[in-house]
Amino acid sequence: MNIGVVGATGLVGVTLVNLLESTNLPIDNIHFFASKKSVGKNVKFRDKYIEIEELNNECFDGIDIVFFCTGKHISKEYAPIAASYGCTVIDNSNAFRLDENIPLVVPEVNLIDIKAENQIIANPNCSTIQMIIPLHYLSEIATIKRVNVTTYQALSGSGKGAIDEFHEEINNSEYVPKVLPVSSDERHYHIFNNCIPQIDVFTENMYTLEELKMVNETKKILHNDNIEINPTCVRIPVIVGHSEAVTIEFDRDIEIEEVKSALTNKKGIVLYDDITRQLYPMPTITNNKKDVYVGRIRHDLNHKNIVNMWIVADNLLKGAAWNALQIAEELYLTR
Amino acid sequence: MNIGVVGATGLVGVTLVNLLESTNLPIDNIHFFASKKSVGKNVKFRDKYIEIEELNNECFDGIDIVFFCTGKHISKEYAPIAASYGCTVIDNSNAFRLDENIPLVVPEVNLIDIKAENQIIANPNCSTIQMIIPLHYLSEIATIKRVNVTTYQALSGSGKGAIDEFHEEINNSEYVPKVLPVSSDERHYHIFNNCIPQIDVFTENMYTLEELKMVNETKKILHNDNIEINPTCVRIPVIVGHSEAVTIEFDRDIEIEEVKSALTNKKGIVLYDDITRQLYPMPTITNNKKDVYVGRIRHDLNHKNIVNMWIVADNLLKGAAWNALQIAEELYLTR
Repeated sequence: MNIGVVGATGLVGVTLVNLLESTNLPIDNIHFFASKKSVGKNVKFRDKYIEIEELNNECFDGIDIVFFCTGKHISKEYAPIAASYGCTVIDNSNAFRLDENIPLVVPEVNLIDIKAENQIIANPNCSTIQMIIPLHYLSEIATIKRVNVTTYQALSGSGKGAIDEFHEEINNSEYVPKVLPVSSDERHYHIFNNCIPQIDVFTENMYTLEELKMVNETKKILHNDNIEINPTCVRIPVIVGHSEAVTIEFDRDIEIEEVKSALTNKKGIVLYDDITRQLYPMPTITNNKKDVYVGRIRHDLNHKNIVNMWIVADNLLKGAAWNALQIAEELYLTR
Repeated sequence: MNIGVVGATGLVGVTLVNLLESTNLPIDNIHFFASKKSVGKNVKFRDKYIEIEELNNECFDGIDIVFFCTGKHISKEYAPIAASYGCTVIDNSNAFRLDENIPLVVPEVNLIDIKAENQIIANPNCSTIQMIIPLHYLSEIATIKRVNVTTYQALSGSGKGAIDEFHEEINNSEYVPKVLPVSSDERHYHIFNNCIPQIDVFTENMYTLEELKMVNETKKILHNDNIEINPTCVRIPVIVGHSEAVTIEFDRDIEIEEVKSALTNKKGIVLYDDITRQLYPMPTITNNKKDVYVGRIRHDLNHKNIVNMWIVADNLLKGAAWNALQIAEELYLTR
């Protein structure tokens, strides 16, 4: 089996290459593709150094699965070309997520959405993935009417430049930020000693694109246009690990034990909830973990049909690279 | 007028002493009180160095106003003694906030609650103060049924030890935390590169004490037992400046312009909301500011009676020292 990775030197790419080193996929050859300026550099894979090849219209010949770990413009241009060569494309960008002909997949939730004819499969946004796994298991025991979610998102979601900027800011109080919140946007703000209520650009309806991703991707993955999502997405000075405060309104009263039981021994989830011992998920707990951690499960103080929880996951793993590889493994090893 | 400050060397105390240097209160003498171990140390005030005196049962003789900037145990013991000497006590601790005979005051909201017989006045919790000012102005134009609030709280709310610990963690990855989330609790967690969904101790009902403060203090200050508050309080690695994502459900549909207008040119609030220019409140914007900053005001995507906003304030100023001094100034200068 021949594997390709576009963008192997970015944060998600590096994380994916690490995961691929121990996958059970029968890898014969692996190819790393990048723009001309990176061609000739080496990427280490299973004790070999493999030269980066140029991303172009012919590079996908003979590749079985190609992972795109770059921005949506590269994906929009090259994913269809890869598909035309017969590759299975797993795309981490926002290019195809809401395309109705392309499945948007979290394996624990909707692997079934991948049909034989789908050459391109979209990987959801990090903040959506970690929220939707608990929502999926809970929607099997009661109808979810509404979700209020506020996020505490890590810098790594904005790429290596944001992490470098964070370290610069720690060491040099005169540093002038130029990456966060959105490098292409007009204003830039410090993230060290700050938190920024903007992730991705603002849209016409007063929400950021990140917030709308959570709304629209959740509806698509759950096949539920009626579920109401009220999101606020915030960047905080943490390098890896997104946290989310999630309030779920069900259509009926629900016991906390029912909720916990629905999230116990389920694929992709660790119930990490014992306040008597101060155990709750945090980025330091979930770093380098593949699962989504859930804790602080409790009723709303006034309504027995509303439940709060605190959800944390490694945004580079389950939020990106691991979810992408998991799709490939499910398709080629399990199916 | 003779002023006393108990705990002048703590974070809130230092902030208060700075503010007192430029108050219009006619200060003749200022006295700083602390436990025996600090007696003899000096505190600078208006270019003089003033020796710290011992806090004891006789120290309040001749003092007109005394500010308590220490923990609830000191306040419980000494505030009634100070009151017995005829002092007006303004207490920053949690000792008396829910005492029905003691007013809990945010000057913009309920100065009227202070009656002639009240010798002790309680200063609310930082996270309550910044939320309640917008809630107060909004409750004048429509009934608020429910509030969902998640906080992004700064380290300084947990005292100097937490800030020192944060700096240790930045410089030394081997450092073993011993202050956060709660120094007296069993487990301690890193805050650098982390966020902790626990502020203050857990209570029997699965909420932390910090979360219940937001619920109970809000009801008391607004004189509204029916308002529903659903809180999640989280510590993030920011030194000064609490942020809050607040979702407000009204009993009727409301226009965004109505909300903005209710928060415009109101005492204690700065409407800081222009997403077309990426302007929204952040801790770096509100540091050293006395007002509460409000931005990202927008409708819920599904309900015209629900509005989201992002509220940030300097937790040491409006969240503590400034609110306390403001109470004194209102009582002695304005009334």
